[in-house]
Amino acid sequence: VAIVKNDLYDYGLFIYQDDKRFKFSLDSILLAEFVNIDKNTKYIVDFCTGNAPVPLILSTKYAGNIVGIELQKYIYDLGCKSILTNKLNNRLELINDNIKNVNNYIESESVDIVTCNPPYFKYEKNSLINDNREKAIARHEIEMSLEDIMISARYILKNKGELYIVHRSDRLQEIVNVLSNYKFAIKKIQFVCTGGNVSNIVLIKAIKNGNYGSLKVFKEVDVSNVNTYKGIFG
Amino acid sequence: VAIVKNDLYDYGLFIYQDDKRFKFSLDSILLAEFVNIDKNTKYIVDFCTGNAPVPLILSTKYAGNIVGIELQKYIYDLGCKSILTNKLNNRLELINDNIKNVNNYIESESVDIVTCNPPYFKYEKNSLINDNREKAIARHEIEMSLEDIMISARYILKNKGELYIVHRSDRLQEIVNVLSNYKFAIKKIQFVCTGGNVSNIVLIKAIKNGNYGSLKVFKEVDVSNVNTYKGIFG
Repeated sequence: VAIVKNDLYDYGLFIYQDDKRFKFSLDSILLAEFVNIDKNTKYIVDFCTGNAPVPLILSTKYAGNIVGIELQKYIYDLGCKSILTNKLNNRLELINDNIKNVNNYIESESVDIVTCNPPYFKYEKNSLINDNREKAIARHEIEMSLEDIMISARYILKNKGELYIVHRSDRLQEIVNVLSNYKFAIKKIQFVCTGGNVSNIVLIKAIKNGNYGSLKVFKEVDVSNVNTYKGIFG
Repeated sequence: VAIVKNDLYDYGLFIYQDDKRFKFSLDSILLAEFVNIDKNTKYIVDFCTGNAPVPLILSTKYAGNIVGIELQKYIYDLGCKSILTNKLNNRLELINDNIKNVNNYIESESVDIVTCNPPYFKYEKNSLINDNREKAIARHEIEMSLEDIMISARYILKNKGELYIVHRSDRLQEIVNVLSNYKFAIKKIQFVCTGGNVSNIVLIKAIKNGNYGSLKVFKEVDVSNVNTYKGIFG
């Protein structure tokens, strides 16, 4: 395992990665950048936290507590090491479990913001999935579904609490449907293009028990030629 | 009533407008530009056709029949005059009725493409609506709702037929929900920005009884500084 300094260099942080087994993606940085934290924010939980890039970046924008949840022990261990190395263990904590069990750790209606960079791909019997089970679980909905995110986020979020999610644009219709089914009202959408003529990545901010209307779709951002993602959404 | 030549000048067409009572909007041009017509397309119906800008523009991309439906008699009459003036009455026809009654005019499962530029605003008892009833009906969901579009479009569209709709981006969540409820799968989304940092207009192509997946969100187009809309989506 090598400490890769440069990946979170812009934020003045170190992060443990494993070239062979797990590296965080651009999408986690975009998700952390997309989150608005105001003075009332006291408690943030990051689902599917991986090696904890989202908690680490959010710690530079916010002085409160952040909990990350990661199912896979090896990846969770990478995250724990990064938190210690960055001396953030006084306010960043990781839980090694499935987000479906979040009610065992976090009180209902106690959280201001939930963030999530989930596995992107549907899992079906015939899915072409990675031979490597660890990578497959990180990428495919094997251990959890979009519905599980909604159920667990609804449980821990305060009324009018905020859910931020990053996902693939090609699954937008399903994501919107599931959010609606669990009474999340979408307030902000940011599409991101990584080259070509389509937007691959979508960032969504939704409010628990919010009202429809006043949804803002922000001008698309093309990241194919940027040098830093820090402050990319202005 | 003045014949306004220039508004559809790029298409070599005349269109009757009425500065005081009804003029078509940019959004109708964008909708017509967004429609893909292939060699299998035999029958197109335009809901809420107004003074018929969408049928008129589509007639320049396609040699088949187009029917437009417009509830308001005065606006319908403007459309009929334009069709005659452009000598398109051999293949363009308008119906003066509510789209809810489409089954009185058009056979079920007979249509390849439905297009719709509907009233954009919700209508509630307390809505601030235009004093002018004609304008209010064109802008607010007084005589029809998003659900009515889906019910009528489902009725006349062939299996796997295409629904193209233009709407306000801030109602995206409701539009996606209603499409899903009536088993339309979204295949293409095009956001359009008319200035500022948000996308105001969304264009959606959805397929009756289609499968989720393979949704493409195209790179946003900013129309604030264009000279012509013709061919704007490449």
